[in-house]
Amino acid sequence: MELGIIGLGKMGGNMAERLRRGGHTVVGYDRNPDVSDVGSVEELVERLSPPRAVWVMVPAGKPTQDTVNKLGEILQAGDVVVDGGNSHYVDDQKHGAELAAKDIGFVDCGVSGGVWGLQNGYALMVGGDEDNVKRLMPIFETLKPEGEFGFVHSGKIGAGHFVKMVHNGIEYAMMQAFGEGYELIEASDIVTNVPETFHSWQEGTVIRSWLLDLMNRALADDPQLDEIRGYANDSGEGRWTVQAAVDLAVPLPAITASLFARFASRQGDSPAMKVVAALRHEFGGHAVESAKGADSPGADVSPPAV
Amino acid sequence: MELGIIGLGKMGGNMAERLRRGGHTVVGYDRNPDVSDVGSVEELVERLSPPRAVWVMVPAGKPTQDTVNKLGEILQAGDVVVDGGNSHYVDDQKHGAELAAKDIGFVDCGVSGGVWGLQNGYALMVGGDEDNVKRLMPIFETLKPEGEFGFVHSGKIGAGHFVKMVHNGIEYAMMQAFGEGYELIEASDIVTNVPETFHSWQEGTVIRSWLLDLMNRALADDPQLDEIRGYANDSGEGRWTVQAAVDLAVPLPAITASLFARFASRQGDSPAMKVVAALRHEFGGHAVESAKGADSPGADVSPPAV
Amino acid sequence: MELGIIGLGKMGGNMAERLRRGGHTVVGYDRNPDVSDVGSVEELVERLSPPRAVWVMVPAGKPTQDTVNKLGEILQAGDVVVDGGNSHYVDDQKHGAELAAKDIGFVDCGVSGGVWGLQNGYALMVGGDEDNVKRLMPIFETLKPEGEFGFVHSGKIGAGHFVKMVHNGIEYAMMQAFGEGYELIEASDIVTNVPETFHSWQEGTVIRSWLLDLMNRALADDPQLDEIRGYANDSGEGRWTVQAAVDLAVPLPAITASLFARFASRQGDSPAMKVVAALRHEFGGHAVESAKGADSPGADVSPPAV
Amino acid sequence: MELGIIGLGKMGGNMAERLRRGGHTVVGYDRNPDVSDVGSVEELVERLSPPRAVWVMVPAGKPTQDTVNKLGEILQAGDVVVDGGNSHYVDDQKHGAELAAKDIGFVDCGVSGGVWGLQNGYALMVGGDEDNVKRLMPIFETLKPEGEFGFVHSGKIGAGHFVKMVHNGIEYAMMQAFGEGYELIEASDIVTNVPETFHSWQEGTVIRSWLLDLMNRALADDPQLDEIRGYANDSGEGRWTVQAAVDLAVPLPAITASLFARFASRQGDSPAMKVVAALRHEFGGHAVESAKGADSPGADVSPPAV
Repeated sequence: MELGIIGLGKMGGNMAERLRRGGHTVVGYDRNPDVSDVGSVEELVERLSPPRAVWVMVPAGKPTQDTVNKLGEILQAGDVVVDGGNSHYVDDQKHGAELAAKDIGFVDCGVSGGVWGLQNGYALMVGGDEDNVKRLMPIFETLKPEGEFGFVHSGKIGAGHFVKMVHNGIEYAMMQAFGEGYELIEASDIVTNVPETFHSWQEGTVIRSWLLDLMNRALADDPQLDEIRGYANDSGEGRWTVQAAVDLAVPLPAITASLFARFASRQGDSPAMKVVAALRHEFGGHAVESAKGADSPGADVSPPAV
Repeated sequence: MELGIIGLGKMGGNMAERLRRGGHTVVGYDRNPDVSDVGSVEELVERLSPPRAVWVMVPAGKPTQDTVNKLGEILQAGDVVVDGGNSHYVDDQKHGAELAAKDIGFVDCGVSGGVWGLQNGYALMVGGDEDNVKRLMPIFETLKPEGEFGFVHSGKIGAGHFVKMVHNGIEYAMMQAFGEGYELIEASDIVTNVPETFHSWQEGTVIRSWLLDLMNRALADDPQLDEIRGYANDSGEGRWTVQAAVDLAVPLPAITASLFARFASRQGDSPAMKVVAALRHEFGGHAVESAKGADSPGADVSPPAV
Repeated sequence: MELGIIGLGKMGGNMAERLRRGGHTVVGYDRNPDVSDVGSVEELVERLSPPRAVWVMVPAGKPTQDTVNKLGEILQAGDVVVDGGNSHYVDDQKHGAELAAKDIGFVDCGVSGGVWGLQNGYALMVGGDEDNVKRLMPIFETLKPEGEFGFVHSGKIGAGHFVKMVHNGIEYAMMQAFGEGYELIEASDIVTNVPETFHSWQEGTVIRSWLLDLMNRALADDPQLDEIRGYANDSGEGRWTVQAAVDLAVPLPAITASLFARFASRQGDSPAMKVVAALRHEFGGHAVESAKGADSPGADVSPPAV
Repeated sequence: MELGIIGLGKMGGNMAERLRRGGHTVVGYDRNPDVSDVGSVEELVERLSPPRAVWVMVPAGKPTQDTVNKLGEILQAGDVVVDGGNSHYVDDQKHGAELAAKDIGFVDCGVSGGVWGLQNGYALMVGGDEDNVKRLMPIFETLKPEGEFGFVHSGKIGAGHFVKMVHNGIEYAMMQAFGEGYELIEASDIVTNVPETFHSWQEGTVIRSWLLDLMNRALADDPQLDEIRGYANDSGEGRWTVQAAVDLAVPLPAITASLFARFASRQGDSPAMKVVAALRHEFGGHAVESAKGADSPGADVSPPAV
């Protein structure tokens, strides 16, 4: 079928290519004229026959909002827009409503697959009305990997990005689990062969997984992880996961602990622990010692430790 | 080589069988005479030529302690004992020292593999002296799966059970991660196809893993998990993991959160939350209202909520 | 000075009364004509001489937004609005900007004090420009308790509600701390005098506090807390605290754990723990037993426990 | 009554003095001859008339164990030993059983009060048999503060140290709560008067407490806490609290988070976060990029952030 794609970066460009190989007619626009098929979004729209389908593949936030705004102005009733970027599901709901007011359909699509997607296909998580999703199925069928996995219509508008977000939240906790296990093993003086241990776990264990494979790849290059600092950024998706949980009153202790561990990893010094240290110091002060001196009874006792 | 095995249950019996198929000479003892090759541990020891190797495959705790005690009395200097059960690594260190006092070697071995181990091999995590481990390598080679994974000499005595314990701790947090993700997705009213979503994740995602496969197996049988209560036991290994972390001053927030979630899942009512509820109730009481009434200002305000 | 108050409920009414006793001229409006001094907000505004000060004391959210909108329409440049309700600090910033566009000042004020505030004064936490706060100081001076504590100008617009929100977050964790300590003591079979223990702690300990006093009040009435369920609601402020922390990349493990414990206390069954239970069940299933049977080695072993 | 005290350090010496002022006959032993009344424990025992009472006030662990051993050898049936140090409750149970085998009584006593205890009295938490506690009441009555608080017979042997331990666990979480609240307020750019805010909270709030007073004392000296590092040690009691909770299957998320925050505060770099960082780095690697490149779609996208 015919598809317009806005954003021909590494992801959008490869997706256009995979779709063309699959027999679809793709018109691509990018602000970089070297890779663009048309000179403007307006021209892209003109080149498509109604009812049109336009796939937006630009960064989340303002670039996506701007593109949705523009499409809302120039598309016609009956057309459909797909947001294949990393938008927050709340924005999807807003975009869906804005376009619906003009009888333009909207589908959100979380995409996994990276540079290998061109070859192997992209994992797709989709949200939107049955009709719009159905209409786009030829596109999804070509983009997805072969086999029974890698595509899901998860629910209403926003559901695609919502489940992609939760996927990343789960990923945070799994990464943290391996990190904690590694640190505990490292701290033990009876375990002397740490990388060998993780290596051996890749088969026959309960925790075998792609992340464990990655971890072994990292340990193969740097067995003590000497070359790497314990400093971890976070993308918006971990934060959105926790905020969605708070909104929905869902306890999420392991995922949240994983997010907070990343926050803490980036601090030079912890203001919270300054307070704890200051309070412990106050215990020893003259005026307040009364309540705590008992922690160090005896004739030969070491300083109070609380 | 020649090996005595004490404990011929499902695990011990199959291991004996796999070793025999591999060309080893196995003498097995079990308190069930129907499966036992000999009438007593003494007879088992007599049947082996020194230096002997005896594999203990009985439950952790008292049964293992009793067996180690008995072997300490009747084995000779130069013999070696393997504990293939689920012992706490601290007990290994005690057993190792007790046997070392009699010049008897000791190796601990965490074992994974279940009923398929007979066919596919057992994942083995081993702790002990190089010499003892080396001497037992023919046994380990036959028990382990084919290929490069599934066997590791992790370190000193106790290291085998220590890393198996940490493996289980990691497993707790991974299971919790999937649980939390599932609950959050379930709580969202925009995601309508929950089992389909987890199904689709089995390829092309960061969280693909054996546990995700298991989860999809469970969801295939019971798509809403209606048939199962949110009640989760814990084995000793999760607790030991947290206690080891506390001993070693290692922060373990995600794994510990996972253990605590299991504890909480088994409570009819939470005494801690009774206190929180009681305190909230006190806020509303006449004598204490002074500090909190401000939470409900205005002419038409709902009752104070804190 | 002269002050208009919108919302004459328990809080607003008492504050009006305390201000009148303090010599101020108060014009109050409430939608309940029995307590209202004027028939409309318009009339209230007319009765005040410019530059006017109007204190809004209605529920957070839509009622406050509607009141701010209305005041924005009918007040004049140079007037000032105080939001003394429980608004989210983010809304304060919005309201402040909306009013600033019309040269109307805005101050937010978190208020503590309840029914005793009339007598003892209200603790006030204020955000806004120096000029506006200064101008309102006669009001604040009359409302606050005597002595050096109980009033603070915390910072810019929103700061008053922000610090009141954080106060409540701290409160969550303190309540949880007492709950956890109580549960642990309850669980011990060596401690037989639990209420007596908490009672004794009210002097000479590090944890002495108003919340401990409240807890002892609750235990005096119901020594086993038999009459109360471990079910705890949460107000918006705990959630806002966690969401602010996520926005600002501040790790907040204890406060967040306290919020999640409240969420969990309200669940009949935990979907997350259903998943954990289902996964544990799958371990025992025929096709998957291979990886976990090793957890129950030996001839006389109990069922696998993971 | 007559009492022997072993250990005349700051705590033991002051307690002896307070008891003498209260009319008791105290015989003290210390290894420092300058402060000791007798030359040996044997001599102390000889100087007391049976049935004797001996208060042990030496450091927990080996010094206490050695003292208990010695007393077990030289005391007589009917005598009673009090451990007023900081022993683990598990050790109390051991000591109680050892002494009971010789018909010697044992009472454990958690003590709070420090250098002001001489003047104001010591908060006492006691475990042991009714008979033994009753017999020692004249001593406890003199040591404790005046008034209704500050003494409790909490339960069986070990209960005194158990509840003192839990007291400290609660204290950890309360300190953490203030730390987290402070950090969140510090992180906000709208709150400009942080110390003033904490200062104002000392009256009229829900969180007013002795710890808040201490915190304000610290902020008065060092308003930005510039002089203090966010580095917090922990005593054994926080660890014991978590380990007791794990033993008793009690979820303790806030207290445990507080302990882990202290552990983390002492790390130069976090091995766990090295793993997380390494895994994030692997996502970007050539061979693994396939699964994650999708996180950065579009023509002008920034590097993948997970």
